[in-house]
Amino acid sequence: MNETTWKTAITQVRPNEVRLRGYRIDELMGNVTFGQAIFLALKGELPPAGAARLIEAMLVSSIDHGATPPSALAARTAASTGASLNAALAAGILSINRFHGGAIYDCMSILQSGIDRATETGKSLEAVAAELVDEYQASNRRMAGLGHRIHTADPRTARLFSLAEETQVAGQGVEMIRTLQQAFEAAGKRLPINVDGAIAALLIDLQMPHDLANAFFIMARVPGLVAQVSEEMARERPMRAIHPTDHEYDGPAPRELPPGTTAPPNR
Amino acid sequence: MNETTWKTAITQVRPNEVRLRGYRIDELMGNVTFGQAIFLALKGELPPAGAARLIEAMLVSSIDHGATPPSALAARTAASTGASLNAALAAGILSINRFHGGAIYDCMSILQSGIDRATETGKSLEAVAAELVDEYQASNRRMAGLGHRIHTADPRTARLFSLAEETQVAGQGVEMIRTLQQAFEAAGKRLPINVDGAIAALLIDLQMPHDLANAFFIMARVPGLVAQVSEEMARERPMRAIHPTDHEYDGPAPRELPPGTTAPPNR
Amino acid sequence: MNETTWKTAITQVRPNEVRLRGYRIDELMGNVTFGQAIFLALKGELPPAGAARLIEAMLVSSIDHGATPPSALAARTAASTGASLNAALAAGILSINRFHGGAIYDCMSILQSGIDRATETGKSLEAVAAELVDEYQASNRRMAGLGHRIHTADPRTARLFSLAEETQVAGQGVEMIRTLQQAFEAAGKRLPINVDGAIAALLIDLQMPHDLANAFFIMARVPGLVAQVSEEMARERPMRAIHPTDHEYDGPAPRELPPGTTAPPNR
Amino acid sequence: MNETTWKTAITQVRPNEVRLRGYRIDELMGNVTFGQAIFLALKGELPPAGAARLIEAMLVSSIDHGATPPSALAARTAASTGASLNAALAAGILSINRFHGGAIYDCMSILQSGIDRATETGKSLEAVAAELVDEYQASNRRMAGLGHRIHTADPRTARLFSLAEETQVAGQGVEMIRTLQQAFEAAGKRLPINVDGAIAALLIDLQMPHDLANAFFIMARVPGLVAQVSEEMARERPMRAIHPTDHEYDGPAPRELPPGTTAPPNR
Repeated sequence: MNETTWKTAITQVRPNEVRLRGYRIDELMGNVTFGQAIFLALKGELPPAGAARLIEAMLVSSIDHGATPPSALAARTAASTGASLNAALAAGILSINRFHGGAIYDCMSILQSGIDRATETGKSLEAVAAELVDEYQASNRRMAGLGHRIHTADPRTARLFSLAEETQVAGQGVEMIRTLQQAFEAAGKRLPINVDGAIAALLIDLQMPHDLANAFFIMARVPGLVAQVSEEMARERPMRAIHPTDHEYDGPAPRELPPGTTAPPNR
Repeated sequence: MNETTWKTAITQVRPNEVRLRGYRIDELMGNVTFGQAIFLALKGELPPAGAARLIEAMLVSSIDHGATPPSALAARTAASTGASLNAALAAGILSINRFHGGAIYDCMSILQSGIDRATETGKSLEAVAAELVDEYQASNRRMAGLGHRIHTADPRTARLFSLAEETQVAGQGVEMIRTLQQAFEAAGKRLPINVDGAIAALLIDLQMPHDLANAFFIMARVPGLVAQVSEEMARERPMRAIHPTDHEYDGPAPRELPPGTTAPPNR
Repeated sequence: MNETTWKTAITQVRPNEVRLRGYRIDELMGNVTFGQAIFLALKGELPPAGAARLIEAMLVSSIDHGATPPSALAARTAASTGASLNAALAAGILSINRFHGGAIYDCMSILQSGIDRATETGKSLEAVAAELVDEYQASNRRMAGLGHRIHTADPRTARLFSLAEETQVAGQGVEMIRTLQQAFEAAGKRLPINVDGAIAALLIDLQMPHDLANAFFIMARVPGLVAQVSEEMARERPMRAIHPTDHEYDGPAPRELPPGTTAPPNR
Repeated sequence: MNETTWKTAITQVRPNEVRLRGYRIDELMGNVTFGQAIFLALKGELPPAGAARLIEAMLVSSIDHGATPPSALAARTAASTGASLNAALAAGILSINRFHGGAIYDCMSILQSGIDRATETGKSLEAVAAELVDEYQASNRRMAGLGHRIHTADPRTARLFSLAEETQVAGQGVEMIRTLQQAFEAAGKRLPINVDGAIAALLIDLQMPHDLANAFFIMARVPGLVAQVSEEMARERPMRAIHPTDHEYDGPAPRELPPGTTAPPNR
């Protein structure tokens, strides 16, 4: 078999020089946040000026959601049999798919198709939203990004949208999902925009490729999975039967951020 | 089998309220960086004031090292057979072990044992470093964290150590590894402190649990693996024979950070 | 969340009694082959009388295909970084997808659709095969199950088909793929039926659910992956660059089966 | 980096010829069972004449143990989020480690060390067994391979040992574990030899490399995991909370093997 040389456009490694998408890594370090570097690695370009604070917040929003999600349970199950930390993480990541984490992807599809329909038909987003809500209700489908099993108002969504406005990232994605929420309300159904819906809207406004929706969730959730695995290893005996919901929180009591922390990151 | 209720100290989920280690997630969002939130998720406490910029830089330093590392190759190999993005990532993470990524853990062990030996014996770090270098040279072992296959001066190390001084995080970890480097030089061997060694020193100075060394590398590298997998899917045909080193960089030419970017993150 | 009791129809475990699909496991042991038990676990019923020898042969046919397939390379890559055996196997299995192993599934779809078309239209398999070959050639598509990169006559196919006749399993599946091969030849293209195509035909004739095509290949290949990983650990140094094709066979020279072995398994 | 050609001693692929450890694959097919081929792939040689029936029984014994083991739960959890079958299997395999499946390895170590101690000291196996039981009881450790959470007499063990005698495989491994069981009984503790202990004894008597103990269990269990994943996909809704023990068997009622099946495989 004759193999030709292949190409990569991500990282260039030369003696004493590492460049990510053309920028020296040691220059990126200290000058951009991890979130900005993630954006650069994936999109090939740095995010718009001022968007860093929003991107950090998007990643923080999804860092963990407790021990109940299947990714946490699968990772804990593997850890409980004696798996190494990376193997337990792999089991967790293998449990992030269409039905867990996948709402971001599905919601991006809906929002983009709504925006495209408005552009193509000349209709307003309101008119398109009303149509979409009709279509979903007629076929009795849930719309990804709206509704939550536990939260009636997802606290992460309000925060993300206010940061999206401050940082001037909010665009058609945010507008479309808000219009859909209003259309549901007009049709008699109060549904919160959940954190997946908010992230979907923002990934559209940041022009992140659709295919990376699931990856975004995974990158945000890996640290939470590390914490879950690490806690399983530290606190529990091997081979216990892990009941998926019968757990209680016994960590630090509710507390306020220390004063200095509340000043925002500057970009 | 009788299952008792179990406990978790990471995240508390209540209707319309999500708290990570006691802090409201919507308050963390916009006020801390992703790196600070990672530190909080893992350690249970926010990092020291001012350390955020360093932590971000540590994560950025390891985000990608091109297509040659085995984690990138395993992830690309899986992707090339038609694996979904999360499955390809899992294959990559399963390839981050003792011999790839593990240098951080091994170096932390050496540094900590050096520091402990100095404390216990009352010897200076210099004296202990000389002993350790003797021991490694006598048994003809490489010391993790020192030396690099490609770089004679790892550009990421200099940057990390200068940020560690600016942010006042640098402590005994940094001192110990620098002293070891000098002891090798005194013994006739010039070895750069590589990025794994620098991170190991800083994780000690940040009092990160030893067990999380490998996790730190994984969290930093996942976005790079996403970029590698995503590029494989976009640019290459399925089932190609992936030669591990015969690739060329064809991405953006060397470039400077845009002016506004060079102001540092403020914490 | 209210969880109702759930059901499973596979295995029943009671004190001193384990039953697989209703049969005592200790009665299955010694009376059926592993292949028969696999069939029972998956289908819920034992295979037809006499089919054991064929099923064993199907599993043996795919046990290994050398170090070149991506599943072997991904597993070796993980092992080379220090992964445990099960983690390296997982990386290998994550590399068995549509483009590696998937030909069985794709070929089953083609064969079944050909058989169905003949039934629905009242046409002969020959007529349908000619149509299908026309359609594939018109759209310039390869037909899964036919053709091989290395073999002009796949030795495994001839053997499987002769066993399928001996054991009276051969039916419409085998007939359909042979007819397709003849139709290609009539259209000027000599293509061998490859081992994936032969297995696809036999899985149809054994009425194995379509969804288990990929699983069948994985079950057969896991022992080969174990051998590959185990050899990597025993013979190679960590973190070597694993060139995908530049390897040589240095195992036992060609040899004949010992006399006693050539009598066939009796069922 | 200069890569030298590497070697493999497992499979040789040439045009129209595939050889496993020197034997033509198409000659193995139909003449050896899958279990014999597994043995050949792993050990490099065919098993002793007559051992096939035992090896098949060993693999059948561990094919499934219901929905409760962590490997089944992790695989079902991944499947429940929408994972593909191979990804769900990988999650299951990542949950087979020291504390699940690992008893075979641990028991092999104990048996081998007992046999070696007898050889080195000239003591009888009985004397050594009494010492080992003393040591374990003094340090309050469980001995892998003895005792079971559910079974007071593991039905699989009796069957394996009777087949091991019929096939003349039973040797020092079987003798050692039986002697240990008797020593425990003499010390006032009735413990059944569980299936892992029985397999450990037989792997020693078959001279299987110690490192492959976990692999043996994985190869046997993969079909069971396929059945579990496949059932999860067919019967359950996505993202259900999977209670680890609250399930009921609703498969075929207890039944006898059909008459023809009870004749043993002939080798």
